[in-house]
Amino acid sequence: MSLVGLAKACKAKPYENKKLGENKTMGLIFMNPSLRTRLSTQKAALNLGMNVMIMSFTGEGWALETEEGVIMNGDKAEHIIEAAAVVGEYCDIIGLRSFPSLKDQKADYAEPVLNAFVKYSGKPLVNMESATRHPLQSLADVLTIEEFKTTEKPKVVLTWANHPRALPQSVPNSFAEWINQTDYEFVIAQPEGFELSKEFSGKAKILYNQDEAFEGADFIYAKNWSSYKHYGERYFGKESWMVSAEKMKLTNNAKFMHCLPVRRNVIVEDAVIDSTNSIVIQEAGNRVWAAQAVIQSILQTN
Amino acid sequence: MSLVGLAKACKAKPYENKKLGENKTMGLIFMNPSLRTRLSTQKAALNLGMNVMIMSFTGEGWALETEEGVIMNGDKAEHIIEAAAVVGEYCDIIGLRSFPSLKDQKADYAEPVLNAFVKYSGKPLVNMESATRHPLQSLADVLTIEEFKTTEKPKVVLTWANHPRALPQSVPNSFAEWINQTDYEFVIAQPEGFELSKEFSGKAKILYNQDEAFEGADFIYAKNWSSYKHYGERYFGKESWMVSAEKMKLTNNAKFMHCLPVRRNVIVEDAVIDSTNSIVIQEAGNRVWAAQAVIQSILQTN
Amino acid sequence: MSLVGLAKACKAKPYENKKLGENKTMGLIFMNPSLRTRLSTQKAALNLGMNVMIMSFTGEGWALETEEGVIMNGDKAEHIIEAAAVVGEYCDIIGLRSFPSLKDQKADYAEPVLNAFVKYSGKPLVNMESATRHPLQSLADVLTIEEFKTTEKPKVVLTWANHPRALPQSVPNSFAEWINQTDYEFVIAQPEGFELSKEFSGKAKILYNQDEAFEGADFIYAKNWSSYKHYGERYFGKESWMVSAEKMKLTNNAKFMHCLPVRRNVIVEDAVIDSTNSIVIQEAGNRVWAAQAVIQSILQTN
Repeated sequence: MSLVGLAKACKAKPYENKKLGENKTMGLIFMNPSLRTRLSTQKAALNLGMNVMIMSFTGEGWALETEEGVIMNGDKAEHIIEAAAVVGEYCDIIGLRSFPSLKDQKADYAEPVLNAFVKYSGKPLVNMESATRHPLQSLADVLTIEEFKTTEKPKVVLTWANHPRALPQSVPNSFAEWINQTDYEFVIAQPEGFELSKEFSGKAKILYNQDEAFEGADFIYAKNWSSYKHYGERYFGKESWMVSAEKMKLTNNAKFMHCLPVRRNVIVEDAVIDSTNSIVIQEAGNRVWAAQAVIQSILQTN
Repeated sequence: MSLVGLAKACKAKPYENKKLGENKTMGLIFMNPSLRTRLSTQKAALNLGMNVMIMSFTGEGWALETEEGVIMNGDKAEHIIEAAAVVGEYCDIIGLRSFPSLKDQKADYAEPVLNAFVKYSGKPLVNMESATRHPLQSLADVLTIEEFKTTEKPKVVLTWANHPRALPQSVPNSFAEWINQTDYEFVIAQPEGFELSKEFSGKAKILYNQDEAFEGADFIYAKNWSSYKHYGERYFGKESWMVSAEKMKLTNNAKFMHCLPVRRNVIVEDAVIDSTNSIVIQEAGNRVWAAQAVIQSILQTN
Repeated sequence: MSLVGLAKACKAKPYENKKLGENKTMGLIFMNPSLRTRLSTQKAALNLGMNVMIMSFTGEGWALETEEGVIMNGDKAEHIIEAAAVVGEYCDIIGLRSFPSLKDQKADYAEPVLNAFVKYSGKPLVNMESATRHPLQSLADVLTIEEFKTTEKPKVVLTWANHPRALPQSVPNSFAEWINQTDYEFVIAQPEGFELSKEFSGKAKILYNQDEAFEGADFIYAKNWSSYKHYGERYFGKESWMVSAEKMKLTNNAKFMHCLPVRRNVIVEDAVIDSTNSIVIQEAGNRVWAAQAVIQSILQTN
């Protein structure tokens, strides 16, 4: 069964596989804050009967060294090699969140933290948003589009939006990667200079005019991201890129989506997110079934 | 059955209703630190067989916007509208702690955070101390008085006490509100200017002389609170308002109560809190059964 | 059965006693950060069927007063007397982590936090590393040595190593205390001035020459600690005390051990910790069975 199909099955019968995770431990490791990902992944593992242990390295832990061969006489008390291996000793499946620095494109896109956990933990790893990807979000997004689409091949528009801070490319990267595997019509609307890495944007049609992109759209997926090319740069002040009720009129009565957290009246106008066309809460709710589908398939194949 | 009766039943047989919470999730959301409330509410939910997910917005999360219609281009990354709705997607019952600012009486007493969760989460909400009330504490307090009273209608004195910081009115507000629903004799002792809002103090007899209030008392409930009238003001230096062994001699061998945490030798003298008349630990222990009674009644009616 | 024997039995059949902890609560209280201790103790309690509640006073709580008789008008909102008693109300067994100040030898070695919890909580206490001891680590260490030893009475060397910060003596204290109860050959290698308290080092042979100590060793246990004599002092710059591949050649093909976290190329050279002779991860893994043995024996005798 596809992951989307499995997620639907989990949603229909959440406790059907509660025996599957008995005496198994899910470890959720956070290098950065989290609300939706943390609660939905914890809930998914609990639905499958697993024990869940949560560890936040911000606050409860200490800074980890990721460079190899370093003389560790600075402020980092532990190397990720040991930290990952030790977590692997205590957990059957590991969920990991680790944001990018947004300072060094090459370093971030090499995914040092994620890859160290894959390499040294010896356990299956669930990506709870890494430097370049957020696949649990994308699986929930596709599930949500499947639930709300009214036509076989909807027009899906991923649109850049204004934001006061520089944000990762992980959500749009993964969204593009997943939508590219469907047969939806896929458009990315963005200012020039905000092209995603080609490995992610793939076959998407890129438009620099948001109005043109919105024409006849069935789904508007808004998200800010910092520049990949001029790595980590943001260009705040592009207020015109906010998703407004006016712009939504250009669409085919499109549903509005966003991964959340979202800045109201910066990314999206109140009138849009408060309208019945907004499905951001249902989208967030689907994060449970996305996580449960992924964890369940790991439990079934390990 | 009354909540006090239900709390007694929970205390007598803690695991009697362990099936009731099966496959149900209790979410505990903290905007402020907590010890007793957190552990006792978590334990209560576990006793009822629920899964418990804890999220602290201080440390693990981010600042939430509570004003409506705001352009969110400052330091707040998420609006409470979304945060509450999303938590509602993942939890069957939500416990929420959210302290007042103590800067704006009208704003605090409008309970913006609590009410936003009630409005937007779509799920039953348990107040784990809000800007103006702490009902789980009061239920535990009444249960404790019921257990320790030696006369049908005991004289209960809520006394203001000295404290170096400005504290919320939530504990005395709720205490007064609950005691006003009993047929106990109820006196509030306080310096002038520290009157609680009339909606809470109600029919209580207010005395500005602590010695007079203590005469013949069966229970002394000490607590500091900042001024409601001169909102949030404190008047430190009123050392004479500390509950001392000397003053306890005026009472009818009264039991000493406090919600904790308590500052020794500021609020209460060591000799009082260390005496056998102090029931602060039993009172804290009863927090479990108060929480369990509330959660159980929600589970039984939803 | 000895604790080491019980730990082996837990490792062989982790879920054998899952009924033992039913409806029992393990409270894990942290005054300091933790990774291994937290996850392994949590897992051990879950393996025994207990509920686990975790409370970190750094971040989620507030500063506790430990001095008796103090007028608490400063920054400490609660006395440990109440905090311990309240935690005791909610938990059947309490795990506690509380590091030393490293400023006052006498005060630290009096173990004020640990002893207050023992005295006031009224519940069995598991030491998750206190000011002077880390027994769960030592039990895991002995279990690990038992698993890897190839001779009846191995030569075990505890060696001081270089470190940029002043560290507690708790790990070497407990290690020495436990090894002194075995019939292993036991040597401590350290610079002058770094003698542990005699009550811990006991019958160990103390050598000031690391090379001499390493001769024919079966296990090298590396650890930095600050001075006990010149209390809390560190002497960074002793790079020659790092455990190097060159020095390991002096041993009898010794296994390398460390409690972790470890600073690579400061405490130990990459070439040593990355070699097959390093058993630091297995050692960390054994923390689960050490904790489980201790908790299980408490559950069986209470």
